[in-house]
Amino acid sequence: MSAVATAAPDWSLSAWSAERLRAVEDALSQWVAPDAPAGLGEAMRYAVLDGGKRLRPLLVLAAAEAVGGLPQAALRAACAVELIHAYSLVHDDLPCMDNDVLRRGKPTLHLAFGEAQALLAGDALQALAFELLTPAGDAVPEPVQARLCRLLARAAGHAGMAGGQAIDLASVGQTLSHDELSRMHRLKTGALLQASVTMGAACGHVDGQAGAALARYGAALGLAFQVVDDVLDVTADSATLGKTAGKDAANDKPTYVSLLGLERSRAHAQALLREALDALAATALADTRALHALASMVVNRDN
Amino acid sequence: MSAVATAAPDWSLSAWSAERLRAVEDALSQWVAPDAPAGLGEAMRYAVLDGGKRLRPLLVLAAAEAVGGLPQAALRAACAVELIHAYSLVHDDLPCMDNDVLRRGKPTLHLAFGEAQALLAGDALQALAFELLTPAGDAVPEPVQARLCRLLARAAGHAGMAGGQAIDLASVGQTLSHDELSRMHRLKTGALLQASVTMGAACGHVDGQAGAALARYGAALGLAFQVVDDVLDVTADSATLGKTAGKDAANDKPTYVSLLGLERSRAHAQALLREALDALAATALADTRALHALASMVVNRDN
Repeated sequence: MSAVATAAPDWSLSAWSAERLRAVEDALSQWVAPDAPAGLGEAMRYAVLDGGKRLRPLLVLAAAEAVGGLPQAALRAACAVELIHAYSLVHDDLPCMDNDVLRRGKPTLHLAFGEAQALLAGDALQALAFELLTPAGDAVPEPVQARLCRLLARAAGHAGMAGGQAIDLASVGQTLSHDELSRMHRLKTGALLQASVTMGAACGHVDGQAGAALARYGAALGLAFQVVDDVLDVTADSATLGKTAGKDAANDKPTYVSLLGLERSRAHAQALLREALDALAATALADTRALHALASMVVNRDN
Repeated sequence: MSAVATAAPDWSLSAWSAERLRAVEDALSQWVAPDAPAGLGEAMRYAVLDGGKRLRPLLVLAAAEAVGGLPQAALRAACAVELIHAYSLVHDDLPCMDNDVLRRGKPTLHLAFGEAQALLAGDALQALAFELLTPAGDAVPEPVQARLCRLLARAAGHAGMAGGQAIDLASVGQTLSHDELSRMHRLKTGALLQASVTMGAACGHVDGQAGAALARYGAALGLAFQVVDDVLDVTADSATLGKTAGKDAANDKPTYVSLLGLERSRAHAQALLREALDALAATALADTRALHALASMVVNRDN
């Protein structure tokens, strides 16, 4: 709060995050369809507001700040990525998928609003993500809008998250190799986390080498996130997670823990963290403190 | 077929359509995820290829041609709109929605591939629509990409198709006024049909007056389409429709026929056709033959 020098000795992730989380929550509350008809808006808001760690929005904002990106574009990109994440959770929890009852510490959306409304709310959240990225007027230049849509569509679709979920579906009860498991998670979870970083970077100007290094950072962080998720599914309880613990084993899904065991999974997560931080160093960007701290937080979190 | 006034005496909708349908089918076959993993690509292709009248793509191409739009952009927009339409049918047919068994003359996607894969395929088709609109490279200028995404996202989301479906859900067993029924259909079916026209126009340059008139044409045509759909649900059989006939009454859904009766519904469709053609005349565009013929076809079709 007092005098700060170049290296800002009192920089902290929690202070950095708190300010940005307020902006994200305010924006989501304003943008998530308060006027959608026939209960749809309430369902969409239930799925998005008052919950979640907002890791993806924070990654978008951290990457955008590292490259001097346009704040208006970054805030929209941050919220758009979160909407895609939220819709994927809603559809994942449906009876025909994981049939889950608890999400972000609350009953899942289909329990609260019915299956049909949950299906529609997920669909509408995906559309809203692209709506947020394409505002009329000149607050966000249209070429930036187009690039953000391109990155998000690829990360969400068959070559990203949806493709990973299809592999996940097909893998129940199967034994996957390490490569197959990594591929599934690179698509299912990693693609959207990586897109959070590349979309943040697309809000500003970055040279090819730094852009590629940021993409490597995002890929390593995305995979590390899933390895830690698999560990926590075994070691944490539902109250801490805010979602059902132990469900991978209950659903007979292959995980890093089932493949590598707990200790080697933890070591793998640390190795991926080093990979992410090496990539970050290779960007040669001036201020990557938030990206650095977020990667450490992802790997060392307990929920 | 014989002598007709001014230009091109032998112009016919069927010849005009045949050529464009070939281009659309080829493009869809190429673009709809042949390499998506774990059966997802097959499910997506089942939902999209070999079926459907392709009314929306034809509207996009007709509007684009009327304004001298960029062919590359128009073909992508045509396919993107069709993907949104196809995904909406897949999700609409799911057990938690209409629980339907027949679509485009084939078993519905969830019967053929399972509910979970149908859910994912629908989700992936929506993402793919935005992916098609945002190609890397300079075949489509990025400002055009952004405008196409903007129009499609709004038409598909809570203020368009998804919102209309939420009203539809809430209206089962209810008696709606004419205004309420029109609002539901303007969102549920009309928004995407109107977007087909406005997206086609966004592939070229059009002045404000012509753009507004094209939007009015699209709105009237979109509503006319649904009025005729309600009539055909009563008067046609499933084999002709390629989907289950009589399902509105079976599902106790309010329709134009239940509200107005058959004859007044038919008259309403004709009035909307006149409204569409008047708007088209007001565009003052040089060649609107295809848009004119498509509107007539929509209202006078028998399936």
